[in-house]
Amino acid sequence: MQEMILKKRLFTPGPTSLPQEVIRAMTEPMVHHRGQEFTDLFRHVQQGLQYVFQTKNEVLILTCSGTGAMEACVANLHCPGDKVLALRGGKFAERWDKICQAYGLQVKPIDIPWGEAVDPQRVAQSLEEEPNIKAVYATLCETSTGVVHDLPTLARMVEPHSALLVVDAISALCADELLTDAWGLDVVISSSQKGLMCPPGISFVSLNEPSWDRVKSATLPRFYWDFREMRRFLEKNMTPYTPAITTLYGLNAALDIIQREGLEKVIERHARLARITRAALTALNLQLFSQRPSNALTAVQVPDGIDGAELLRLLYHEHGMVVADGQFHLKGKIFRLAHLGDTNERDVIAAITALEKSLLALGHEFSEGAGLRAAKMASSE
Amino acid sequence: MQEMILKKRLFTPGPTSLPQEVIRAMTEPMVHHRGQEFTDLFRHVQQGLQYVFQTKNEVLILTCSGTGAMEACVANLHCPGDKVLALRGGKFAERWDKICQAYGLQVKPIDIPWGEAVDPQRVAQSLEEEPNIKAVYATLCETSTGVVHDLPTLARMVEPHSALLVVDAISALCADELLTDAWGLDVVISSSQKGLMCPPGISFVSLNEPSWDRVKSATLPRFYWDFREMRRFLEKNMTPYTPAITTLYGLNAALDIIQREGLEKVIERHARLARITRAALTALNLQLFSQRPSNALTAVQVPDGIDGAELLRLLYHEHGMVVADGQFHLKGKIFRLAHLGDTNERDVIAAITALEKSLLALGHEFSEGAGLRAAKMASSE
Repeated sequence: MQEMILKKRLFTPGPTSLPQEVIRAMTEPMVHHRGQEFTDLFRHVQQGLQYVFQTKNEVLILTCSGTGAMEACVANLHCPGDKVLALRGGKFAERWDKICQAYGLQVKPIDIPWGEAVDPQRVAQSLEEEPNIKAVYATLCETSTGVVHDLPTLARMVEPHSALLVVDAISALCADELLTDAWGLDVVISSSQKGLMCPPGISFVSLNEPSWDRVKSATLPRFYWDFREMRRFLEKNMTPYTPAITTLYGLNAALDIIQREGLEKVIERHARLARITRAALTALNLQLFSQRPSNALTAVQVPDGIDGAELLRLLYHEHGMVVADGQFHLKGKIFRLAHLGDTNERDVIAAITALEKSLLALGHEFSEGAGLRAAKMASSE
Repeated sequence: MQEMILKKRLFTPGPTSLPQEVIRAMTEPMVHHRGQEFTDLFRHVQQGLQYVFQTKNEVLILTCSGTGAMEACVANLHCPGDKVLALRGGKFAERWDKICQAYGLQVKPIDIPWGEAVDPQRVAQSLEEEPNIKAVYATLCETSTGVVHDLPTLARMVEPHSALLVVDAISALCADELLTDAWGLDVVISSSQKGLMCPPGISFVSLNEPSWDRVKSATLPRFYWDFREMRRFLEKNMTPYTPAITTLYGLNAALDIIQREGLEKVIERHARLARITRAALTALNLQLFSQRPSNALTAVQVPDGIDGAELLRLLYHEHGMVVADGQFHLKGKIFRLAHLGDTNERDVIAAITALEKSLLALGHEFSEGAGLRAAKMASSE
């Protein structure tokens, strides 16, 4: 591209680019976290979070990354040695496993090939065989592979058992459908920097009453993560410790944007961007990686003979497109194009144009302009 | 005051008001935490942190409040059942105790009346009596009482023993002198929202090599808090999990401001504001609470016959001054006026004017205008 200063565009699955309204909200004067301005802000954010989580549960607000919220769940729900199921089908699912192991739990893994979704029947069977499972650790959108798991069916399989279903919905919130109460998810976590179009730094945990009962009897060590203290302060519209106030102002603005558009429309928008992206990629003779793709991102196989690192380098240095590599064994083998955050159809078209040019430069064969034509067709459908 | 819209001023000991430069830096476009822009930012922030900590140690960057950093230290330094000393002389010192207890450590407390500083000889004696102490948990500025402890002497007492000295310097950093390496402090923590004039949401931990040895052999559960992972990523100028990128942009700007002014001058400025405040308060027949006052804040006794809550209410509603109450048993008995963050002499004068008017309205006796006169005299000294 011939621009003097290359405009950078984030197509990474978090952090995402931010709406101007969110950035502006973060320039509000600082307030004290024990005063009226803060409790008003907190109450408003709380209502917005219940809306995006589709829950009547209180939604705890934690100052940490998503991994912190994952650890907080494990520390609050268990006693040492508890037996749990971890559905391992990607980097973030495996993180559940690692955290549980770090806390001395007995983890029964269910391994799923990366790129595939879990078969809920396998979970049902494991729960039958091991009646003492305390929790099932699952993922709605597995960000490392772009897979969205069938959580409503999974929840029906877990329901007859006493195990809690704990769901990482970090990258899926606002991108894929998530009905916390209607599906009967016990614990759901998410973070600010994905579909919520906010900076990273705050995470969320929604817990239903059976989960709260577990929190009360859990004995693993916790202090900063102690959900009981968070609930006590939530009644006063506060957090136990100084929260990320500026980011909460941004979140407040983002939740307003989402509520104005309407959650269903927000999810439809993500689905539409995903559809356009996939139509274009397929027209470029690229193979999609995920067998059950999420609306949050599209994972794509790097074609044989193309250097994945070189492709990402070209996209960035020639076109300003920040695209995510694969993780672990998929590094250089797939790339991941998110359609999260403040991203619209024009951004997706720009990404496809850049991808066409970069692939051509690297010698990948396809009918020139096919990506753009397919995108336009999918867009007018 | 006759203003139509009352300008609010924060005199709370964190969060503090923010310099315009910090606010502006946080409007930078979002970047990905695995790209070049981020690693450049991280490297620059790292150098600035080493400067304000006065250390050659790596300074870990954690996305959490200060309490999270406290917990992270405990989780990384110990095995279950370790014996530790906690110097309890205020709310935040007691927090060390509570966190250690939550993690199953044996805590030997040294109790200090709130408002007084610890006698380092008592610590030396406890270490003689209990040779198996693994760490001494201390505080540089105790924010609940405004006391600054004599850390250089304390460090000399701890030095002959194998115990680590772990210091909460959250509200003291940039306000009181802190020489991590020269004093021989093993572990020092701080946070973004006090003397660093940033929003809350990021905390820091500096560890020397003996502390790193302990981190390697510690067995308490940790994942998000795992210092080993943080060190591994720090070598690549990254964090293991998505950090609070926007706040890091603000921090970067704040560290630049501090480095331009020079750390010594920044501390002198805090000392000068503290001196002016205290001269004025004394002239208003008020009794200072702390027997060894920090430059970060001034704790003041509410005079007999005055309702502390009403005083704070007047300061806020009539003058826009956000002043902190006492905590726990000191609620309503003291108030705390911080001179942290983007606060200058004019702000302090405004606070004193408001305080004079409010105290007069509540019937406290003093020579009218005495506070302002004393402040002006102290200011020209």
